[in-house]
Amino acid sequence: MSQVRSALFAIAALVVSASAHGQTDALPSWNEGPAKQAIVAFVKETTDPASATFVPAAERIATFDQDGTLWVEHPMYSQVMYCFDRVGALAKEKPELAKTEPFKTVLSGDREAIGKLGMKDLEKILAATLTGMSVDEFHAQVSKWIAEARDPRWKRPYTELTYKPMQEVLSYLRASGYKTYIVTGGGQDFVRVYSDATYRIPPEQVVGTAGGTTYGYAKDGVPFLTKEPKLLLNDDKAGKPEGIHLMIGRRPHAAFGNSDGDKQMLEYTKAGDGARLAMIVMHDDAAREYAYGPAQKLPDTHVGAFTQASYDQAQKQGWVVISMRKDWKRIFSFE
Amino acid sequence: MSQVRSALFAIAALVVSASAHGQTDALPSWNEGPAKQAIVAFVKETTDPASATFVPAAERIATFDQDGTLWVEHPMYSQVMYCFDRVGALAKEKPELAKTEPFKTVLSGDREAIGKLGMKDLEKILAATLTGMSVDEFHAQVSKWIAEARDPRWKRPYTELTYKPMQEVLSYLRASGYKTYIVTGGGQDFVRVYSDATYRIPPEQVVGTAGGTTYGYAKDGVPFLTKEPKLLLNDDKAGKPEGIHLMIGRRPHAAFGNSDGDKQMLEYTKAGDGARLAMIVMHDDAAREYAYGPAQKLPDTHVGAFTQASYDQAQKQGWVVISMRKDWKRIFSFE
Repeated sequence: MSQVRSALFAIAALVVSASAHGQTDALPSWNEGPAKQAIVAFVKETTDPASATFVPAAERIATFDQDGTLWVEHPMYSQVMYCFDRVGALAKEKPELAKTEPFKTVLSGDREAIGKLGMKDLEKILAATLTGMSVDEFHAQVSKWIAEARDPRWKRPYTELTYKPMQEVLSYLRASGYKTYIVTGGGQDFVRVYSDATYRIPPEQVVGTAGGTTYGYAKDGVPFLTKEPKLLLNDDKAGKPEGIHLMIGRRPHAAFGNSDGDKQMLEYTKAGDGARLAMIVMHDDAAREYAYGPAQKLPDTHVGAFTQASYDQAQKQGWVVISMRKDWKRIFSFE
Repeated sequence: MSQVRSALFAIAALVVSASAHGQTDALPSWNEGPAKQAIVAFVKETTDPASATFVPAAERIATFDQDGTLWVEHPMYSQVMYCFDRVGALAKEKPELAKTEPFKTVLSGDREAIGKLGMKDLEKILAATLTGMSVDEFHAQVSKWIAEARDPRWKRPYTELTYKPMQEVLSYLRASGYKTYIVTGGGQDFVRVYSDATYRIPPEQVVGTAGGTTYGYAKDGVPFLTKEPKLLLNDDKAGKPEGIHLMIGRRPHAAFGNSDGDKQMLEYTKAGDGARLAMIVMHDDAAREYAYGPAQKLPDTHVGAFTQASYDQAQKQGWVVISMRKDWKRIFSFE
């Protein structure tokens, strides 16, 4: 196999030489500026064997929040849209559901009334639409929806509403030997359905809010797993570093988020030794996407809030704030 | 980058040609027989693009129980030995522990009395030695122990007591594009400490019994995770397919076990479509390792029992039984 080995060395040399000479721009959708510089500098610092902060390939872990970091989260998280749509399908299967709250309100389509549903109502909707079926049935239901559903503003599949600059970061990090993970407050089983096709992130590299399953047997003796309404991991806030430890077992070298829910993941990442990159996307582009904070006097929101306290912590701890308006040359692939 | 691409094609051609001509035996520690044949046939069926049961590289997942499947589990699981040893270190830090049961009995060294400790006692010992510290402290404690501790029979580090034939299967599957995972009833954080050095399985590919952690801050504001005595995943029996779904999110194409605790993982794997391989190691070699079942009239045991019911299920469902005595030419690397 020595021919293989020498061919591999030849490839390694070509790859190193190409990147060392910067022949291509791995981040063409990024404007020149401190955010882009921070990414490129981090990759150089951690992948150049001569660097004091070189990281062995096996330890290169980068984690990405999904909603608001990799794709659009306004006016509402895509998974919540899924759950609401799913109530309609459920009501066809079980007509008595249409007479019961909060399902009755969801089915009414009355946006004002839906907007007033409380946390307990939402929990009932999530339990009814995300649990009780086999993992295979759930996978099939989400697959169908994700192919058919359209975002209300762009009239496109949600999976087309990923941010091109972030897709470039994913590809650039992978090309630099990083294993890329999604670490999302969204449902792990939900995101795993489309993560590979959408982000080239395989299911086993998706960490999300996860419920338990129960192993059992069908009448013919075939085993299957049922999704249970029992929370194992609430992958938000402190649950993000806890989930990273549970599912990955190593501290990331790079982490990307956009809201207060990512604070703990970002500070945990940044607290590691050597070179660590923490970045936070600020939605300050009402024209091309949305504008919300309330950091930097942007409008307040209940979906993906990024407070001034998190902005201040970013300045203090060296997280890099990404301004969608200033740092991103384009936002979507379809632009 | 077309030079890179053509070099890659050249390598692919070489690799395919080498394996197609069977120039090397990937399993030299296996005797010729049905077990070895089953492994080789499975790899061919799932990696040959012309095969009707070809599996795309991204979906090639193989899971391995650890204790009794990849390394020696008798007379007692290594992790339990760790916990017992750890009681001594704890008693030095907290002398009052030496006066309290069940720690007093463990410290007495009285094997008969230790053997009589009940499940509640064991739980107290596990809680005291596996939780309450930061994940970094735990990692350091296990690292030190695993380097220093010696198995009572072979007087060698536990990590040398891995089965060479199974190490060959791990390497062979990886060389065939499979991602290899450990799926163990043992502690996930424990096994992750040495899995990479011992099996070339990185921490993120170790699924095990896992407790929760709590995110918090040291006095200087530095964040850290504390191991809590709260069980998230009991990765044994039905917990194995449940853990596989939680941590990997795909059904394995191949699974390897040795005891009744692996039954559900093996049947779940085998119930998938296409080519699936389920193998179960039978410890029938008292001379070179240990003999226990009680399947096939082997002596009964409380550690890694493999009952006749599991043996019968193997015959019925097409799991392949590996006889250590007949199928393995050698057992350890140091032989």
